[in-house]
Amino acid sequence: MALIVHKYGGTSMGSVERIRNVAKRVAKWHRAGHQMVVVPSAMSGETNRLLKLAGDIVEGSGRGASPRELDMIASTGEQVSIGLLSIALQAIGVQAVSYAGWQVPVKTDSSFTKARIESIDDARIRADLDAGKVVIVAGFQGVDADGHITTLGRGGSDTSAVAVAAALKAAECLIYTDVDGVYTTDPRIVPEAKRLEKVTFEEMLEMASLGSKVLQIRSVEFAGKYKVKTRVLSSMTDPDIDLNIEATSGTLITFEEDEAMEKAVISGIAFNRDEAKITLTQVPDRPGIAFSILGPVAAANIDVDMIIQNQSINGTTDFSFTVHRNEFAKTMDVLNGSVKDAIKAKEILGDNKIAKVSLVGIGMRSHVGIASLMFETLAKEGINIQMISTSEIKTSVVIDDKYMELAVRALHKAFGLEQAA
Amino acid sequence: MALIVHKYGGTSMGSVERIRNVAKRVAKWHRAGHQMVVVPSAMSGETNRLLKLAGDIVEGSGRGASPRELDMIASTGEQVSIGLLSIALQAIGVQAVSYAGWQVPVKTDSSFTKARIESIDDARIRADLDAGKVVIVAGFQGVDADGHITTLGRGGSDTSAVAVAAALKAAECLIYTDVDGVYTTDPRIVPEAKRLEKVTFEEMLEMASLGSKVLQIRSVEFAGKYKVKTRVLSSMTDPDIDLNIEATSGTLITFEEDEAMEKAVISGIAFNRDEAKITLTQVPDRPGIAFSILGPVAAANIDVDMIIQNQSINGTTDFSFTVHRNEFAKTMDVLNGSVKDAIKAKEILGDNKIAKVSLVGIGMRSHVGIASLMFETLAKEGINIQMISTSEIKTSVVIDDKYMELAVRALHKAFGLEQAA
Repeated sequence: MALIVHKYGGTSMGSVERIRNVAKRVAKWHRAGHQMVVVPSAMSGETNRLLKLAGDIVEGSGRGASPRELDMIASTGEQVSIGLLSIALQAIGVQAVSYAGWQVPVKTDSSFTKARIESIDDARIRADLDAGKVVIVAGFQGVDADGHITTLGRGGSDTSAVAVAAALKAAECLIYTDVDGVYTTDPRIVPEAKRLEKVTFEEMLEMASLGSKVLQIRSVEFAGKYKVKTRVLSSMTDPDIDLNIEATSGTLITFEEDEAMEKAVISGIAFNRDEAKITLTQVPDRPGIAFSILGPVAAANIDVDMIIQNQSINGTTDFSFTVHRNEFAKTMDVLNGSVKDAIKAKEILGDNKIAKVSLVGIGMRSHVGIASLMFETLAKEGINIQMISTSEIKTSVVIDDKYMELAVRALHKAFGLEQAA
Repeated sequence: MALIVHKYGGTSMGSVERIRNVAKRVAKWHRAGHQMVVVPSAMSGETNRLLKLAGDIVEGSGRGASPRELDMIASTGEQVSIGLLSIALQAIGVQAVSYAGWQVPVKTDSSFTKARIESIDDARIRADLDAGKVVIVAGFQGVDADGHITTLGRGGSDTSAVAVAAALKAAECLIYTDVDGVYTTDPRIVPEAKRLEKVTFEEMLEMASLGSKVLQIRSVEFAGKYKVKTRVLSSMTDPDIDLNIEATSGTLITFEEDEAMEKAVISGIAFNRDEAKITLTQVPDRPGIAFSILGPVAAANIDVDMIIQNQSINGTTDFSFTVHRNEFAKTMDVLNGSVKDAIKAKEILGDNKIAKVSLVGIGMRSHVGIASLMFETLAKEGINIQMISTSEIKTSVVIDDKYMELAVRALHKAFGLEQAA
């Protein structure tokens, strides 16, 4: 008898038959006495279809589609999903009601196509739950202070679900997806990769931000900020599977470091090829230089990931950072436009053939030698390290992207992850 | 320099290329100095696709889809259209902004799937117009007092457009469609049918309600109630056609009966096969009997069209009425359920193989002999008349549906409509 939030991705909602299965699964939880809120994504392929229409309209015009109008269009995918799921529940005798983001409302800022949730009003949802209804809330979307429809960016439905769970103080947020949990690394690259029964919020945050595509990073941030117990599990099982078995499957993202977890030094290996590296050489080493470089980049709405600035030599230093590969060209334009002359850099070097590989583990905090074993392992494989960045629970390296799979396999083995619980 | 509302149907919005043409046409009007509000329908086929998904979900469940959720789903078709049209205008350098029904807001009652507009707030639209923007408002949809999305029923975008024009006191509402105006009758049945340059609101109302599918009847009611000058014209012409030619094309629905119009006795012939006839025989002729029969029908949300009750003989009478053919079975169920015994009717007879043919004309008011020429014409063709109903500007007959085309052709000729202006 708890308040539970379920989130279903586009694949889980991908056909009439699958939507019926989602309804069966939700109904099982509802009939067990739980108050149920469900956050579905758009049917798979639908968001792409809608954005392609918009792209076709502007093609050849030399103008991009307005982000506000893109959100107007893209948000309809989830609106269809919630209506269909509501009908599917009603068809099997479960009272249900659906709400678009603006109806809840899910209030966001006005950053169209990548808005951030500011608040969620729980009154309407709670009234329906108390009346015995399953409440279905559109993922991915919200409304800004002026009543414009916004969307949260790709994968935003995860964030919607966790944010709704936080607003309702739900007992647990279950993210149903097409994988059965979080693994020590991608099983497609390392067949011996093991599913983790638990992972801490901080580890998950590093895993997600480093390209383990299981959860959108902002959903993990939300889960951490509001201490939402979040479980990642498979929607591909029989919807009539025993509820107690289902409720303990997948991977739980926790906020306590229990004993079992401390034993594992490293939880997993994350990696991605989504980034590009940019280096400005012989930049004068004076106060404000980092802002002179990254200020214009941020102003162009480009997110920066790793930032590295080395010790200066003879009053100049090399300044490197990484951005998403899709924004590489735009970033180079910004830097070559006004920044280069303003800061008197010698050259601006760009490389979009890089990969980032990271060890993630809460245990890293109390274990020395992690970094050195990592570097030793890569050296043995003849892989050159281009950049290094560390935090309390992760160590990341940037390498030539052709070595990525090799690096992941070698590290998985070196850290004994095939024996993980 | 006027405020003009354009409405475009699903066919006009049916592809990326057609949406671009709509944008070109709107831009032409905008650049000529007019303040433009545009109300598009969903892309052709989209509403059916969405409703089919909903139908597939409930198939075999023995339950119908909830009207509220159907509106949640169906309203997305127009939401996509407005976003695409806005982007198409922006792509050719015209500032544009789109609004879903709830954003305006277009307030309606809570009759999901066939809601009625109660009010339209003009503040937001007017502010954008004053800022030089083209404003695009989603047709077919609104929002009720509790913030639920509603739709106006099939063809509802016509009503949205006229209602928006009324709220804004627009100079004219142009309904762009795939025909080039209102004809004396359907040219597919009578090739000699002529386009009317003008038609009065009352004639149009009768034509629309009698099945001339050019405009949704509620849009004509709105046009009449708020005296919205409405023009029906073709969206299939070159979008760059001279604006002055375009602005006088099609058929204008007027509120003045000018001299030229008084000359024409009959404006047109409307017809449909959408109805079914029901007769209750030997009903006791006492006060309240009509309500005893039609009250339960209305309570089942079934619209009744013609109602005929004859002089009673020996204290009983035969009571006949027509309903939409889709609601024939439901109506028979209602009557056989409780009504029949309660009112002690002898039998309930139903016939769904009927057609209704109507002469419509403001001139009918001052001309005698219209009805008799109509009956004579049908008699000459050997067509039996089953029901007759008259109003000030129309005379309708119900006949066997196999004679419908024959009746329309014979009447078109008998009333000399091939010479209409």
